[in-house]
Amino acid sequence: MFLAKVVGSVWATKKTDNLTNLKFLIVHPVNLKKEPLTDVVIVADVLGAGIGETVICAYGHAARQAIQPGEPAELSIEAAVVAIVDKLDVDESQITMIE
Amino acid sequence: MFLAKVVGSVWATKKTDNLTNLKFLIVHPVNLKKEPLTDVVIVADVLGAGIGETVICAYGHAARQAIQPGEPAELSIEAAVVAIVDKLDVDESQITMIE
Amino acid sequence: MFLAKVVGSVWATKKTDNLTNLKFLIVHPVNLKKEPLTDVVIVADVLGAGIGETVICAYGHAARQAIQPGEPAELSIEAAVVAIVDKLDVDESQITMIE
Amino acid sequence: MFLAKVVGSVWATKKTDNLTNLKFLIVHPVNLKKEPLTDVVIVADVLGAGIGETVICAYGHAARQAIQPGEPAELSIEAAVVAIVDKLDVDESQITMIE
Amino acid sequence: MFLAKVVGSVWATKKTDNLTNLKFLIVHPVNLKKEPLTDVVIVADVLGAGIGETVICAYGHAARQAIQPGEPAELSIEAAVVAIVDKLDVDESQITMIE
Repeated sequence: MFLAKVVGSVWATKKTDNLTNLKFLIVHPVNLKKEPLTDVVIVADVLGAGIGETVICAYGHAARQAIQPGEPAELSIEAAVVAIVDKLDVDESQITMIE
Repeated sequence: MFLAKVVGSVWATKKTDNLTNLKFLIVHPVNLKKEPLTDVVIVADVLGAGIGETVICAYGHAARQAIQPGEPAELSIEAAVVAIVDKLDVDESQITMIE
Repeated sequence: MFLAKVVGSVWATKKTDNLTNLKFLIVHPVNLKKEPLTDVVIVADVLGAGIGETVICAYGHAARQAIQPGEPAELSIEAAVVAIVDKLDVDESQITMIE
Repeated sequence: MFLAKVVGSVWATKKTDNLTNLKFLIVHPVNLKKEPLTDVVIVADVLGAGIGETVICAYGHAARQAIQPGEPAELSIEAAVVAIVDKLDVDESQITMIE
Repeated sequence: MFLAKVVGSVWATKKTDNLTNLKFLIVHPVNLKKEPLTDVVIVADVLGAGIGETVICAYGHAARQAIQPGEPAELSIEAAVVAIVDKLDVDESQITMIE
C-alpha cells in the first residue's frame, strides 16, 4: 500500500456503469517527510477522507474489496482508500534518505 | 487509477483474436498541472473519449471489467478508460510539488 | 498496455516446464517520439512480430490470455505481444513533453 | 518481492472493516548497499518485524496469502512482510551499480 | 517479464509458513548492455540459477505457477525465475538508448 495526501476530487458523468455513485479522490503519494511526489493517483473512497488528510491506499483486488466487499469483481476500479491515518510513528534514526 | 490526456489512437490489423473491433487510444498520464508525462499508455475505450479529453484509466481486472463486463477474463487487455473527466476540484494549498 | 519496439530475442533451454516452445522477444518500451526507453521488457509472442516492428504489449492475465486462451492460468508468463502496430494517429498539438 | 527496512508504523482508527486488528508497518525499499530509497511502502505484518530490521515484502495475492492464508481474498491489503532477513549473501564482484 | 543478473541469495528463518524450503535469490534487473540497474528484486528459484547468470523473471501469478504449478495460490511469493538465459540475440541497429 502507499501513503498519500488527499488534494482534490474528480467529477465525471460519463463513466463505466459499475462506477455510478462512487466518489473519486485525487491523491498525491507522499514520502516520510510527507512531501507529495509529482505523481497523481485517482482512488475510490467510501471512508469519507477529506482534503488534506493522509490516507493509506491499496491497488487491485484489495481496492475493490475495500469498496464493495460483497462483489469486488464487479467493480472497474483498481485503487482505493483503505484507511485514514491518525498518526505515523517513525524512528528518525532509521531514515537516511538518498539525495 | 491514473489521470491521462487522450493524444491519439492506434491501428493494428494483426492482433490477438479477442481484441477484434476494440478501439485503442494513446494516452499520456498527467500530473495535477495537467502536464503530460513522457510515458505513453495504450488503453482500450468503449466510452468514446475524444482527442484532448482528460480521462481516468484503470489497469488489470478493472480494465477488463470496464470493457466487457460479462466475460472480463476473455480479454487480453490490461488498461482501459473507465471515466471521462468533467472537472477536477483541487485544493491548491495542498499541493507542494517537489521540484 | 504499452508501446514497444522489438529489438531481439532470448534463447533459454533451462526454463519452467510450461514455457517449452514459447518464443520470447526483447522489447524496448517507447514514447510517442518512438524513442526507446532504457528499460527492457521480455515478452512472449505468438503473433510473429519481427525485429524493428512496433507492438502493443500487455501484462498479467491479459498476456496469458493472448498466448494460451484455453488455459491461461497454466502459463508462467506475465507479458506478451497482443498486437502489431500498423499506424499511430497522434494529434501533435496535444503533446507537450516535459523536458 | 523487494527488500526493505522497517522504519515505523501507522495508526489508523478509521479503516476498511476487514483490516481491524491488522498491524501496518512503514518500510523503505532498499538497494544492495542497504540505502533506503525515497519511496515509502505500507505493509501488513504478522511476523513481528521490528524497527530497523530488513524484511522481504510481497505485493498482491502473495501478501494476502501471507497475512490470512485461509481467506486471502477477504483482505483489502496488497503488500505484506513475508520474511525477516537474517543474512544477505552477495557476490560483490557481480555488482556494478549505475551512478 | 524482466532480464536480471543473479548477484546473491537471502537467508531468512522467520518467514511465512508457505515459504519453507524455498530459495530466494537477489537479482539486479539489467538493460540490454547488461548493466545492472540500482534496483534489487528478490525472486524465488527452483531452476538452480547461479551467481552471475542472466535470468528471466516474472511477477505475480506467473511466478507462483513457476514455483508450485499444482497449487500456485498457496504461495506468498510474487516474483520468480522462469528461465535461465543462454543467449541474447539483439539487433544493435534497433537500439538507440536515451542518455
